[in-house]
Amino acid sequence: MKILRINTRERTYAYEDMGEYAGLGGRALTSHLVRKEVPANAHPLSKENKLVFAPGLLSGTMAANSGRLSVGAKSPLTGGIKESNSGGMLSQKIAKLGLAAIVLEDKPERDTPFASIRISKDGVEFTDAPDREGKDNYEYQQVLNDFYGSKVSIGLIGTAGEQCLKASTIQFTDPYGNPARSAGRGGLGAVMGSKRVRCIAVDNKGANSVEYADKEAFKDANRRWTKMLKEHPVTGQGLKNFGTAILVNIINEAGALPTKNFRMGQYEHVADVSGERMSELIEQRGGKVAEGCHPGCVMQCSQRYVDKDGNYVTSGFEYETLWGFGPNGLVHDLDLIASMDRLCDEKGIDTIEMANTVTMAMEGGLIEWGDGPASKALLEKVGTDDPMGRIIGNGTGFTAAALGVDRVPTVKNQALPAYDPRAVRGVGVTYATNPMGGDHTTGYAVCQNILKVGGDVNPLKDEGNVELSKNLQIATAAVDASGMCLFTAFAILDNDDAMDIICDLLNARYGGSITPDDVLALGVSTLKDEHGFNADAGFTKHDDQLPRWFKEALPPHNVTWDFTEEQLQEAKKF
Amino acid sequence: MKILRINTRERTYAYEDMGEYAGLGGRALTSHLVRKEVPANAHPLSKENKLVFAPGLLSGTMAANSGRLSVGAKSPLTGGIKESNSGGMLSQKIAKLGLAAIVLEDKPERDTPFASIRISKDGVEFTDAPDREGKDNYEYQQVLNDFYGSKVSIGLIGTAGEQCLKASTIQFTDPYGNPARSAGRGGLGAVMGSKRVRCIAVDNKGANSVEYADKEAFKDANRRWTKMLKEHPVTGQGLKNFGTAILVNIINEAGALPTKNFRMGQYEHVADVSGERMSELIEQRGGKVAEGCHPGCVMQCSQRYVDKDGNYVTSGFEYETLWGFGPNGLVHDLDLIASMDRLCDEKGIDTIEMANTVTMAMEGGLIEWGDGPASKALLEKVGTDDPMGRIIGNGTGFTAAALGVDRVPTVKNQALPAYDPRAVRGVGVTYATNPMGGDHTTGYAVCQNILKVGGDVNPLKDEGNVELSKNLQIATAAVDASGMCLFTAFAILDNDDAMDIICDLLNARYGGSITPDDVLALGVSTLKDEHGFNADAGFTKHDDQLPRWFKEALPPHNVTWDFTEEQLQEAKKF
Repeated sequence: MKILRINTRERTYAYEDMGEYAGLGGRALTSHLVRKEVPANAHPLSKENKLVFAPGLLSGTMAANSGRLSVGAKSPLTGGIKESNSGGMLSQKIAKLGLAAIVLEDKPERDTPFASIRISKDGVEFTDAPDREGKDNYEYQQVLNDFYGSKVSIGLIGTAGEQCLKASTIQFTDPYGNPARSAGRGGLGAVMGSKRVRCIAVDNKGANSVEYADKEAFKDANRRWTKMLKEHPVTGQGLKNFGTAILVNIINEAGALPTKNFRMGQYEHVADVSGERMSELIEQRGGKVAEGCHPGCVMQCSQRYVDKDGNYVTSGFEYETLWGFGPNGLVHDLDLIASMDRLCDEKGIDTIEMANTVTMAMEGGLIEWGDGPASKALLEKVGTDDPMGRIIGNGTGFTAAALGVDRVPTVKNQALPAYDPRAVRGVGVTYATNPMGGDHTTGYAVCQNILKVGGDVNPLKDEGNVELSKNLQIATAAVDASGMCLFTAFAILDNDDAMDIICDLLNARYGGSITPDDVLALGVSTLKDEHGFNADAGFTKHDDQLPRWFKEALPPHNVTWDFTEEQLQEAKKF
Repeated sequence: MKILRINTRERTYAYEDMGEYAGLGGRALTSHLVRKEVPANAHPLSKENKLVFAPGLLSGTMAANSGRLSVGAKSPLTGGIKESNSGGMLSQKIAKLGLAAIVLEDKPERDTPFASIRISKDGVEFTDAPDREGKDNYEYQQVLNDFYGSKVSIGLIGTAGEQCLKASTIQFTDPYGNPARSAGRGGLGAVMGSKRVRCIAVDNKGANSVEYADKEAFKDANRRWTKMLKEHPVTGQGLKNFGTAILVNIINEAGALPTKNFRMGQYEHVADVSGERMSELIEQRGGKVAEGCHPGCVMQCSQRYVDKDGNYVTSGFEYETLWGFGPNGLVHDLDLIASMDRLCDEKGIDTIEMANTVTMAMEGGLIEWGDGPASKALLEKVGTDDPMGRIIGNGTGFTAAALGVDRVPTVKNQALPAYDPRAVRGVGVTYATNPMGGDHTTGYAVCQNILKVGGDVNPLKDEGNVELSKNLQIATAAVDASGMCLFTAFAILDNDDAMDIICDLLNARYGGSITPDDVLALGVSTLKDEHGFNADAGFTKHDDQLPRWFKEALPPHNVTWDFTEEQLQEAKKF
């Protein structure tokens, strides 16, 4: 495996041996590289920042659900380190080119034309991005496919990324050719935009397989792995039937569905925006209830949402998006919410960040509570010449500041996802203490707090939740190094031999004798890289806490957030 | 002396004994009160923040140049503690009412009408601010004087403060009835706006003198004090002839005049915007070269700038403003720059912050370098419904983020003033390490670095500049407690008995036996309050540093900024 370094100012490139990065992949690699090579006090949009695309250690193989991509950099949104994890086609194609990472470095002058970069087994080609101006992502994906041919898979930024807005995503081609998969959080699209790169096109023609130390052993381990995933009720059944939107009713029932900017834990119109309702609509209209985000996925938690005429609207339409554009702003029009999901993919902006951003517009009196069309109209401005678009596209904290709002649901300036931390306290601990800012995926305690997968920890009491979040954060960092989908954790948590299987896969792929302890140690070392970077960037324990207004009681359980900074720091003691 | 606490939500008030605040005044009082009473992690626009107006310990007396007002709160701009120091009429009138501080507390609901608050010896009257909507400060000052009578002195926010923008000032009536004096830095106008208070009107009728422990001794000390100020070449002569704008040529000559967003240290068209040119123009046109910002001022460093027809344009038109709207953006039209100074007073926005903000618009390609009219047009948008006004009015860091600019001249998100830190290194240390963010007044090493008042420390070498800044920061904190104008420091630094005279004044006012050591100890304890608050708000040594691009060489001396974080921390060791 090599590291491909691309100088965006000179439009040159070089392949490098792994050196000190040997044995790392995915998030473990992006975070270690950023920690080593990016000064913690560098401006995120400066030439000193680096944007790293790293497939997981198992990406490119036949292992089920191993095709996730890690994208890392110093975040323009949080000012700390960021790994943003995405599905799509690129991870496997990059791995199949024998690359452990692609690193975008340096930056051109401000007025330099945006580049498009094609990467194949023959090297790297630079061209001025063709016919891009003002084009949203779905249309531009078509332009690029016409330009490069349809076999190429694409990672691209939208007009928001071009403007270096802090909520900008990098979108990736899904298996059906749509740019519907996102490295959504932390504004990494702005880093790509600052380097004046609109698109990376990866073509793995002529380089279509990875090598295995022991292919038969790998096949055998993968059989066990696939069986395990298929037999678990969540990864084998639940996700397929309703996608992540199944959580709408579950989290509402638990009194933890943030409603009206985290004022209540239940929403009266929840039935209109439930996963059950979504599946029903999709089936009626001839869409597709279950799809995968990358080849080799056996869970199929994505979907193809279609309008009343059966026309494609969006996919990768997650619970968090549904919640954010829905209940949190008192909106319950599913078609409208789906169209906002699509719009975010078009502009290249993070749905969780944007969902909280439009509630800031409601808090600030710019639009009315429950006015979904007005929310959508604000999103439409992003990436245009309208200065309001620059406010909205810079996210929740920025929009709150522009409008003088003081009820701002962010941690480290990143907006909170769809679980009220007072009523899902394990997730609250994750929000507060993980290195990425307000984020649920880095320690998804919903499993034990609500779903009772892998344990049972009371979501409404403090006891056990710091330890729970800490252990999940370690395990997740390890999973994110592997390229495995986070949702494999459902099955891993319930199967004692899951970690052994993962080690069997790694050892059959690379040779060696990695043990489950080694894998967890990799999780810990990754977190240490991340927290170390953040400390050098100026973060302290005071940043590892929720906004003070979470001390208010949340109905219906009337629970409050009372963890002290000292208690929360325990989640960072490895 | 009493503390007057005003609850802005209930529109109630109470007088309180000094209690633990006894013996404190000015900045020593604002900072201690904020440290004690405002949670460091409170949102600056939340009900938990408090806005404190505190006259200095000598304010209200006959002592020369003792009428400065300290305004304190948690800053919406920096997220740290802030004391913003202003001239004008209010300090002496508040002191004459027997008040050591007025504290605005709590906050009303968002849609509550803005209040106007009248404070007199008979108590506090609340009314909805009359006829305020869309009115800029000069016009609104007239409305308020019609409403309350012309004897009342006013502190008010403009349309920027109403919108809670981070660069909002609080403007104060000068002795000539204009709202031309500013608590400019740190966005304290936004705190007042969040509390829905447009105006504080102070009427000291019937309460026209402060008490003295020994009036004759006070008179005697004040005679010595006034003589000292009048005899010093800077406080007695220089400031009167050219105001602070005399520095334009001096700092340019020193190669330290930041030009084109801190790219160069000299400006080719400097003669067009010099203090000498300004005085010449004012005299030709029949303006006034020398005015004081408050009664009792013997220095008269302010002026009355008039247009070619002799009509009043602005006053309190400082060197920093001239520099910022001039050389730093490659503009050299003095009348235009003066009109921008006025515009900032009208909107209630900080000139230093705004001057750097318009250079961000130039960096970001929104307007052209040198296009002064375009800069002014951006300022015109502040406080209106135009979303661009919300971007600009939130200051330099915010505007840079909106436009994707990475060359951002801020420390702790506050924009840097008119001295390139590479070529006036003592000021650079102050920028980096003082508790307020990018600020020169808290440790004005220009004295020793350039003017050679009170010492001679090479501005281009590191040696001695950390110690210099540290000592100035302590002395300044003490001066800011007294209510004395900062410029008295010129004379204090050159007169060995100056501190004794100040102690004589304090002892004759209050009784007691304060010594110069006590005064410096007050400076130290104030800084400890401020740094303590900031530490609890999450600031670390990593925040006490300049942006990384100050490592670039600055012509003509080709000096770079090389202080390490560790070296800089020495300036905070008291």
